[in-house]
Amino acid sequence: MDVVRSVKSMRDIVREWKRDGEKIGFVPTMGYLHKGHISLIKALKGIVTRKVVSIFVNPIQFCPGEDFERYPRDEERDLGVCREEGVDVVFIPSTSEMYPEGFQTYVEVENISKGLCGTARPGHFRGVATVVCKLFNIIQPDVAVFGRKDAQQALLIQRMVKDLNLDVDVIVVPTVREEDGLAMSSRNMYLSPEGRRRASAIFSALRCGADVILGGERDPSCVARKIRQAMEDKVDKVEYIELRTYPGFAPMDKLAGKVLVATAVWIEGARLIDNIVVDIEAGEIEL
Amino acid sequence: MDVVRSVKSMRDIVREWKRDGEKIGFVPTMGYLHKGHISLIKALKGIVTRKVVSIFVNPIQFCPGEDFERYPRDEERDLGVCREEGVDVVFIPSTSEMYPEGFQTYVEVENISKGLCGTARPGHFRGVATVVCKLFNIIQPDVAVFGRKDAQQALLIQRMVKDLNLDVDVIVVPTVREEDGLAMSSRNMYLSPEGRRRASAIFSALRCGADVILGGERDPSCVARKIRQAMEDKVDKVEYIELRTYPGFAPMDKLAGKVLVATAVWIEGARLIDNIVVDIEAGEIEL
Repeated sequence: MDVVRSVKSMRDIVREWKRDGEKIGFVPTMGYLHKGHISLIKALKGIVTRKVVSIFVNPIQFCPGEDFERYPRDEERDLGVCREEGVDVVFIPSTSEMYPEGFQTYVEVENISKGLCGTARPGHFRGVATVVCKLFNIIQPDVAVFGRKDAQQALLIQRMVKDLNLDVDVIVVPTVREEDGLAMSSRNMYLSPEGRRRASAIFSALRCGADVILGGERDPSCVARKIRQAMEDKVDKVEYIELRTYPGFAPMDKLAGKVLVATAVWIEGARLIDNIVVDIEAGEIEL
Repeated sequence: MDVVRSVKSMRDIVREWKRDGEKIGFVPTMGYLHKGHISLIKALKGIVTRKVVSIFVNPIQFCPGEDFERYPRDEERDLGVCREEGVDVVFIPSTSEMYPEGFQTYVEVENISKGLCGTARPGHFRGVATVVCKLFNIIQPDVAVFGRKDAQQALLIQRMVKDLNLDVDVIVVPTVREEDGLAMSSRNMYLSPEGRRRASAIFSALRCGADVILGGERDPSCVARKIRQAMEDKVDKVEYIELRTYPGFAPMDKLAGKVLVATAVWIEGARLIDNIVVDIEAGEIEL
């Protein structure tokens, strides 16, 4: 496994791979890899011949006052995980390698970046779209994998790929959860044991919302209220509970079709997000 | 020579070329090809094995009330020119092929898009950056050629390529001029014979400004005033006369190094731009 830190070296490897007809799979991450990330890497199995994981805590997707500085980092452990998963190259650029002096070009996905996480985190999705566009151009993957835990992000990337004619297949894989349902996240490590116990309420509340929908409720604000009631004792603050069409991402007056039920909450200074998709016609829940 | 109208067909050709190790050269245009465009195509000679010209009057780079509707179009003549120049593929997508329903992703180059043409044409450079990014992703050129007549545009594309890690060499070629010095432009056809005669004042005024600089003047506003005086009787309106560092594109209090001297004027409802670069140390003018 190679560890590559410069854009130029990464490009050289990619050029050689392309010349040899290799099919490149790519998983972009901010490191501190957990089982969610591992499931993204595993999703490439059998569909590509080369696997690249990037580790880059992208400063431009953090807002002022957010956790950029304290975001957990553990390169040695991450490299072990990648080696274990048969990754060919881990790309770990520095901030100045990605954003050299004079950098001034940004990618904006206008509608999907609004609402939900986009409301509390202005500029966040611009930072995400920009860094992913850059990484796609450097690594030129045939396939890239994203997790459904960040549902808005996954939709945004799919839209960007389509709109900018990037030649990449984007695969979105289900959220990986702890035994009590908490979605895997590098930010879970911010929680104390007590906070960690409370955090399981997020997923149970979403499940409860799904049951309410499948039980016949079609009013989104009524469902959101039920979800809020189911977790408000356990979390320190509910940032949003939103219901949108999926994958269309449009607000609804009356629930129908596939519904994305998404939330962001705060526990002990950690901002945690989760979502599920309820398929009303099929009577099914996608986690 | 192939004429291709869909992104998918263009991609299929590009994939085959890449597999065969072809080196792709690309000239993006809005059609109505003149000697300036031909010089862009000729610049590819000997450095690539395949040549693609795109013809697309890009609606998102026109502001409301501008000349999008009446912008000259002559596909048959353009195809003849491309055939003559040994172009392999002419890519002529429709507006809906480039901007299908739901399109919402834009590329912004923040600083270079401000000032000069960016002031009078808000959104223009966002439209340019977005369409060029899309075309680069579709055609995946090794080399792309732009004209120095649109100096701000060329700098913007170079910055975007660098910032988004697009794997393209951008070549900028000198402005091609009529015998009386008027820069070649598809918009020159808007002029009556009388307006056409007046339009030669733009280039003479820039030359006069260059002479003033080379004569020792270092105050940009003084140079701009001289240029204005040299052409204000001949044009209907001067939109801007600006002096910037080249290629840095920074405003200056005191002229030094290489200076971009750029102007936009209006004659008979046509907006015409031109520029020259004065190399103070070398005592030379680049046209």
